[in-house]
Amino acid sequence: MERNLTMLMDFYELTMANGYFKKGYKDTKVVFDMFYRKNPDNGGFVIFAGLEQFVDYLLNMKFTDSDIEYLRSKNIFDEEFLTYLKNFKFTGDVYSVKEGEVVYPNTPLVTIVAPICEAQLIETMLLLTINHQSLIATKANRIVRAARGKTIMEFGARRAHGYDAAIYGSRACYIGGVDSTATVSADIVFKVKAVGTMAHSWIQFFDNEYEAFKAYAEIYPTNCVLLIDTYNVLESGIKNAIKVAKEVLEPKGYRLKGVRIDSGDLAYLSKKVRKILDENNLSDCQIVVSNSIDEYLLDSLFSQGAKIDSFGVGERMITSKSEPVFGGVYKLVSVKVKNKFIPKIKISENSEKITNPGYKKLYRVYDENGMGIFDFLALHNEKINKNIKLIYPLKDFKYYEIEDGWTIKELQVHYIKNGKLIEKMPSLDEIRNYAKEALNKTWNEEKRFDNPHVHFVDLTEKLYSLKEKLLEEENKKVCI
Amino acid sequence: MERNLTMLMDFYELTMANGYFKKGYKDTKVVFDMFYRKNPDNGGFVIFAGLEQFVDYLLNMKFTDSDIEYLRSKNIFDEEFLTYLKNFKFTGDVYSVKEGEVVYPNTPLVTIVAPICEAQLIETMLLLTINHQSLIATKANRIVRAARGKTIMEFGARRAHGYDAAIYGSRACYIGGVDSTATVSADIVFKVKAVGTMAHSWIQFFDNEYEAFKAYAEIYPTNCVLLIDTYNVLESGIKNAIKVAKEVLEPKGYRLKGVRIDSGDLAYLSKKVRKILDENNLSDCQIVVSNSIDEYLLDSLFSQGAKIDSFGVGERMITSKSEPVFGGVYKLVSVKVKNKFIPKIKISENSEKITNPGYKKLYRVYDENGMGIFDFLALHNEKINKNIKLIYPLKDFKYYEIEDGWTIKELQVHYIKNGKLIEKMPSLDEIRNYAKEALNKTWNEEKRFDNPHVHFVDLTEKLYSLKEKLLEEENKKVCI
Repeated sequence: MERNLTMLMDFYELTMANGYFKKGYKDTKVVFDMFYRKNPDNGGFVIFAGLEQFVDYLLNMKFTDSDIEYLRSKNIFDEEFLTYLKNFKFTGDVYSVKEGEVVYPNTPLVTIVAPICEAQLIETMLLLTINHQSLIATKANRIVRAARGKTIMEFGARRAHGYDAAIYGSRACYIGGVDSTATVSADIVFKVKAVGTMAHSWIQFFDNEYEAFKAYAEIYPTNCVLLIDTYNVLESGIKNAIKVAKEVLEPKGYRLKGVRIDSGDLAYLSKKVRKILDENNLSDCQIVVSNSIDEYLLDSLFSQGAKIDSFGVGERMITSKSEPVFGGVYKLVSVKVKNKFIPKIKISENSEKITNPGYKKLYRVYDENGMGIFDFLALHNEKINKNIKLIYPLKDFKYYEIEDGWTIKELQVHYIKNGKLIEKMPSLDEIRNYAKEALNKTWNEEKRFDNPHVHFVDLTEKLYSLKEKLLEEENKKVCI
Repeated sequence: MERNLTMLMDFYELTMANGYFKKGYKDTKVVFDMFYRKNPDNGGFVIFAGLEQFVDYLLNMKFTDSDIEYLRSKNIFDEEFLTYLKNFKFTGDVYSVKEGEVVYPNTPLVTIVAPICEAQLIETMLLLTINHQSLIATKANRIVRAARGKTIMEFGARRAHGYDAAIYGSRACYIGGVDSTATVSADIVFKVKAVGTMAHSWIQFFDNEYEAFKAYAEIYPTNCVLLIDTYNVLESGIKNAIKVAKEVLEPKGYRLKGVRIDSGDLAYLSKKVRKILDENNLSDCQIVVSNSIDEYLLDSLFSQGAKIDSFGVGERMITSKSEPVFGGVYKLVSVKVKNKFIPKIKISENSEKITNPGYKKLYRVYDENGMGIFDFLALHNEKINKNIKLIYPLKDFKYYEIEDGWTIKELQVHYIKNGKLIEKMPSLDEIRNYAKEALNKTWNEEKRFDNPHVHFVDLTEKLYSLKEKLLEEENKKVCI
């Protein structure tokens, strides 16, 4: 699966980098924040994912001779710049929240401190990687939460947006809490267990449904899950499945493991099928369903008393169908001039698009029970203690205090220093477990789908004053 | 970009293939149709795309030793089957409509005739590839049509669902008629021209907007497109842009090529900016916009008289945001028994999910002006002439006739015969031109966004009778 994705970037990263280079700013250090503004599906938070792939990219960037040749053919890039690219190596620092972290809008998830050319060239891959996997991990987690402990299998490959969307999408679903996948490559690459039994074509290939079930049961007696909706679930599918259980499996000491329903009224059919299975001494036989499942359909199925043990979830999870765009952005927040980080702000006619300026750190405050109460942003060199004054500008501008018994945790980890990885990257199972823990520290009020509680993101008094000051200055600059 | 994607398949393809193998059906020939049931966005048609990548996959499938080892570790696959996979080569036939073709629901787009194991193993990659690229090409074409001849640039990489979605998505957008891309890899791999100038970070990096514009104009005098919304479009951006045009560019004989607006009220701002540019003798300066563009916003902008020359379209095109799932399916339609193709049908409680049975061919009828009137399906060995009787079962069951002057064209091309490519694959530009031609033969009534005309897909009398007969038989089978 190894590819050189160094050139997967927007063309303007190159025109800008060449421009900085020509103007002599190659070594000027800057700080960029990656953050997002709105939770998908009007949810309460996002599960941060994709860091491992971004770090891999960063550590292995390599402009090949043919890349350089391609750029030269554009006739706009300096030869010196092309030589710089030929020897390119990322030399900066990367701070990031951990993969699997529960995160909120307008907080720096990834902070890059690097020479401007480097920081600019990595923008597209950072956003592409984190936006995609965070979107899918977040959606998957919504579906997992709605499944109330029942098994969720990811069945999305055929409707994914290309090969990577199938494979990395499966990885993201696993971080979000999904149990297994249908995608073999995801098992090979990421050890997400691949599962699957039969499609309708298996049934159609044989002379009739009974023959198809019988053949399958003979070959896979220990993992026999039969697809019972090819013709008619109640009139044919379940009857043939039971016949096979009794005539083929049980005489040899095996049990029918499950039946799958892929169409029709899943609430009605699952209840009927459960009853029939139970009446036939097959109460250990599981019911699997797999048609257009998402968190809303799950809620509806449970509220109707559907009898389902396991869900195969495809297109609505792998594309995050209800909201297929995650709008992470990458904004310049500081430029280092004469050894000092000068804060930068991006103003806008939409007040919610005004950025939080400066080289910052992100903290989370947990209560005495370990539950995450709120986040706050501080300047990177601010001394943090329990007496720090915090302001939540989106609400009432009043001061917030950190109560006795609460703890403060810095959320970003210093992963890369001067271009070198200094922190062990966790395994996928560690990431999945971290997400589980982070979710345990998250209030149920933030987890509900309708009007979830809005997690506060405060600013320290110092950062708030800086923002005010910069806004004033920028507004003056506008009228030249 | 070369990768071995052979194992990118659903696990059940392997359990089924192993099952067919064990039961002695390895060499049984079958026919599968790939088709879809519903046009995305309630549109009138789909632009078929992705064939080149699927054919590449098919011709290069190779199960590696480590793939075999992985499968062996599952302890459910026969050693003989694993040996078969080790030596696997696709030996079947592929019939497909051309890439760029305008296509309709419930018509066979790709037909596979191959031994059952082979036909089953390729399902996931066929669907994944065609579903993704057809979805994006179709969406892109909607946006291109709504742009009324103005330039559309694809800016989506950072919001795409992973790396392939950015690169192949860009390819699909190009087939759909987009002019250029921001994604450098798409230029390198597919020669889709990459474009781009600057982000807000460029402006923020400098002490002020004027300095930023000036620096850019000095480096790129012939391609100077300035982003004017970092602070305030009318109070600052356009004023600084004009100043740079007059003070930096024009004295050296250059012209300001364009200004880009990425936020705010695009209709209002574009009209104001156009007026200011014209008053300053810059009527050749283009206005580019790039914020949440799709076909509906384009319609709205034009109806408000917006003055825009070029659109950068990102997330809503690269994810097909309004409908991010294309539901192509792959159904068994025939099994060859004793040298005869036995038709198979898939019935369902939803009548629209009943498949068209048998090994078929797809035809389009064009009127005397070359406009596509309707499609029809026939049995593969049916003799087609102008007297053929056609039925449109979804409407009135009356017979349709082919009038004098009309022509009949077979839409599928025989690309692969006995595992060998026998047809030259077209270049990407040829595909894009083919799509353009196909669209010229498509009625405007099918192109509108609201309630487009529904293109008829008839069945020949023979095929219709076969379907009726099989339905009756299957319904009898159900009650065993």
